[in-house]
Amino acid sequence: MTNTQVTLIQIDNYGPWTVTPSPRREVDLQTLQSRLFADLSQQFGNNGGYVFFTRFDNIIAVTNGVDVSDHARIQESMGNRYPVTISMAIGHGPSPGEALIEATALLQERGSAQDQDRTEELLGNALGSEDRTDDDVHIAHFDVIDATGKYTDELDAFSTFIQIEQGYATLMQHLHDEYGGLAFFVGGDNVISVCPDLEEAEYESIIKHVEATADVTLQVGIGTGTTAHDAGMAAKHGLEECRQKGTRIEGV
Amino acid sequence: MTNTQVTLIQIDNYGPWTVTPSPRREVDLQTLQSRLFADLSQQFGNNGGYVFFTRFDNIIAVTNGVDVSDHARIQESMGNRYPVTISMAIGHGPSPGEALIEATALLQERGSAQDQDRTEELLGNALGSEDRTDDDVHIAHFDVIDATGKYTDELDAFSTFIQIEQGYATLMQHLHDEYGGLAFFVGGDNVISVCPDLEEAEYESIIKHVEATADVTLQVGIGTGTTAHDAGMAAKHGLEECRQKGTRIEGV
Amino acid sequence: MTNTQVTLIQIDNYGPWTVTPSPRREVDLQTLQSRLFADLSQQFGNNGGYVFFTRFDNIIAVTNGVDVSDHARIQESMGNRYPVTISMAIGHGPSPGEALIEATALLQERGSAQDQDRTEELLGNALGSEDRTDDDVHIAHFDVIDATGKYTDELDAFSTFIQIEQGYATLMQHLHDEYGGLAFFVGGDNVISVCPDLEEAEYESIIKHVEATADVTLQVGIGTGTTAHDAGMAAKHGLEECRQKGTRIEGV
Amino acid sequence: MTNTQVTLIQIDNYGPWTVTPSPRREVDLQTLQSRLFADLSQQFGNNGGYVFFTRFDNIIAVTNGVDVSDHARIQESMGNRYPVTISMAIGHGPSPGEALIEATALLQERGSAQDQDRTEELLGNALGSEDRTDDDVHIAHFDVIDATGKYTDELDAFSTFIQIEQGYATLMQHLHDEYGGLAFFVGGDNVISVCPDLEEAEYESIIKHVEATADVTLQVGIGTGTTAHDAGMAAKHGLEECRQKGTRIEGV
Repeated sequence: MTNTQVTLIQIDNYGPWTVTPSPRREVDLQTLQSRLFADLSQQFGNNGGYVFFTRFDNIIAVTNGVDVSDHARIQESMGNRYPVTISMAIGHGPSPGEALIEATALLQERGSAQDQDRTEELLGNALGSEDRTDDDVHIAHFDVIDATGKYTDELDAFSTFIQIEQGYATLMQHLHDEYGGLAFFVGGDNVISVCPDLEEAEYESIIKHVEATADVTLQVGIGTGTTAHDAGMAAKHGLEECRQKGTRIEGV
Repeated sequence: MTNTQVTLIQIDNYGPWTVTPSPRREVDLQTLQSRLFADLSQQFGNNGGYVFFTRFDNIIAVTNGVDVSDHARIQESMGNRYPVTISMAIGHGPSPGEALIEATALLQERGSAQDQDRTEELLGNALGSEDRTDDDVHIAHFDVIDATGKYTDELDAFSTFIQIEQGYATLMQHLHDEYGGLAFFVGGDNVISVCPDLEEAEYESIIKHVEATADVTLQVGIGTGTTAHDAGMAAKHGLEECRQKGTRIEGV
Repeated sequence: MTNTQVTLIQIDNYGPWTVTPSPRREVDLQTLQSRLFADLSQQFGNNGGYVFFTRFDNIIAVTNGVDVSDHARIQESMGNRYPVTISMAIGHGPSPGEALIEATALLQERGSAQDQDRTEELLGNALGSEDRTDDDVHIAHFDVIDATGKYTDELDAFSTFIQIEQGYATLMQHLHDEYGGLAFFVGGDNVISVCPDLEEAEYESIIKHVEATADVTLQVGIGTGTTAHDAGMAAKHGLEECRQKGTRIEGV
Repeated sequence: MTNTQVTLIQIDNYGPWTVTPSPRREVDLQTLQSRLFADLSQQFGNNGGYVFFTRFDNIIAVTNGVDVSDHARIQESMGNRYPVTISMAIGHGPSPGEALIEATALLQERGSAQDQDRTEELLGNALGSEDRTDDDVHIAHFDVIDATGKYTDELDAFSTFIQIEQGYATLMQHLHDEYGGLAFFVGGDNVISVCPDLEEAEYESIIKHVEATADVTLQVGIGTGTTAHDAGMAAKHGLEECRQKGTRIEGV
């Protein structure tokens, strides 16, 4: 069983802000977005959370171990240091996908992402310590087998990027639609996903699907833990084992 | 005619570094990558360049107006402030795709992305001022029509993300394979692409392809300029015009 | 009674690094130092700690509530994201000055700040929860009465800076030598100090000394708490009270 | 002869902002200030400028080579990325102190640093290329002889800090009042100053004054150049020469 706590983080009324009074310089927007994400990553990371940049204005985090007052402090800190504010909603459940549906609904009920009066919402509840266990979070860390040898050192940089991206687009949709898992590209040829408790055969099937659809061959390390960090480190070690042993799935 | 100058930026031997001596904390890697990208964005942006995070360890930039000594200063600055170093190669030509092929080849000739002795390479030449004109760079800035109303405020956050991502995966591949353009997701529902000089009918065709394949309806503003910044700002204004007038293509 | 936990943070072998193989660009050093400090400020701040930039390569923090494993995580995170590493030592006691003497001695015993083999030391112990009370930390937040009206808007910017700086130099030495307090300039006309438990008459005497010596007139808010953040927020509110009521000492 | 261009950078209405609607968290203010300074340092540094944190809300920069449009771009970028805005004024002249008086006056004429309607001012003119020469900027880079051996490794960290600070407070006032030079503590035991064209005997006298008054023994490297960066790098090499040869003044 898993019990994933997921937080949806939304920059308030961001789209309109980026073009008010006239379109802002793109390099400044890129800098703002990526630094805001980096700060969230560090702040949630202090309590074992993982943050994924997602769409940058809509950011998804796995936050088991991060309580509501931690969220409030992070929200206040962002408001103190950026020209934009953030709203957040917390959901949880055995399926990460369901947890995010819950979180999204809480935020949508309060108004549109482009409603200028809906700011700094903080909604939902965190898992209490009595509800938390050692196997609440499952992380599957995928990467592309020999991506450097097969792609980066062989193809031009955009052709490699296309391959990685098509593999990711296939994986994210399949994992979500079939299993309720949430997969995020995290750089290089790496995809980190938060999953329900899946069997080895299911991971086999996922890898085969991506190979058949996008012609990209993945390996995966899986880890379980009380926080995203704990599960994620175990998954990374699983992936190292894949690399050393030449296996494709480790850690289930 | 366009004459795009493209720089490929590669973090030297990054994959091995991330797992030496054992896997490093993911939140630190995410922070490192996104801040390094933010800094590159600011530094190239000072001379009118655009930087796209791409795979974070392989970053693509449009650098018309940024000369070799600027590249060298940026490279030195990264080496002074990060635990990793970067290599860079510059290419140019009427087709952005071809320019990147040229840049990638220069870097690949010097060794693998995971060769620990291939560090801080700086290869290729920048366009001299005598070769630069007012229409060197074409930027097409796409976004999804009414993304907030149709997706963000309606679907759960991951389902929206899937839609945006499938649209992007389709667009990037099509634009590259058919036209030699390079398209990058830049957050929200926005994709910025550097293109050769295309006709309105070609943009029509691109939008139709994405709609038919991924069921995502795009609008696009196109701009031309001597640098990515100049072209990009014109493209943003074109996109604003689309929003106000309800048109789908502006700026050709 | 106070029981201040103080951490000395030292960038390992920093001086030699800044000139190896030849002097590094000053703007990069300034950026590196101030960002490293900003990150430490956020990270210790997550657990209620205050960090003061001090000399930038030797940074002093008030860390009640931050345990050894928190210190270890922060140390690891810095090593993952910067080209330099940090060593840390923790001391504690009723006198902040004595706590820092203890911390400094631990670090000095392990070798020189410029010993290239002395890296990433983590020394000393944090206060256990059984030893912590509500009045462990006393923060006195000083500022200059009407600094904007008397200095910033009247004198040229460097003459104002000289006034502020002479006031600070006087205060820091007096507070340290007479009371074992540690005072830090934190920007504008503000000095935040961590103090033992002082009487109102002692604060009167401190303010008079600074006025007589450096011709700068201070007001001060004092706060007490279990962490630097708690005490510091109370001190800020004390200072607001001074401004509103026209008093010079609030919060004792 | 020198012809120093100095820019005064002021965060608009910062004091009131820090306590509105109630005092903001100190760790956030520290992070905001030091990152804003780091960004300014990088941005002015791209054109050879030096930025000194000074009081953080009033920042002084040496900006020969940075024109008004560069200033405007930097000002816009800060406004796009921070919750506060900045105003700037540029002055120049043979005496750095006089240049700053000119810059300060321009800003003061437009209103108070705490006037909420005085925002994003950009005042004064930059030196045109026809007025610029190879010896416009003189930088003197001071440090304390054997600071690590005599202080850092011997005294407790605050006692060392007091020594460095008293030395700096003495040097900054003397250099300003006697010579119109502007000296800034830049971390460790380093003070970088922008000076008029001084003789070796004058540097001797300055060092003697600091030794007699604050009991701190300095050495100094002096450099000349068309920008602060050029002059500053020469000064750093001068200081390296002092260290190697055991001399106290190099580069005059």
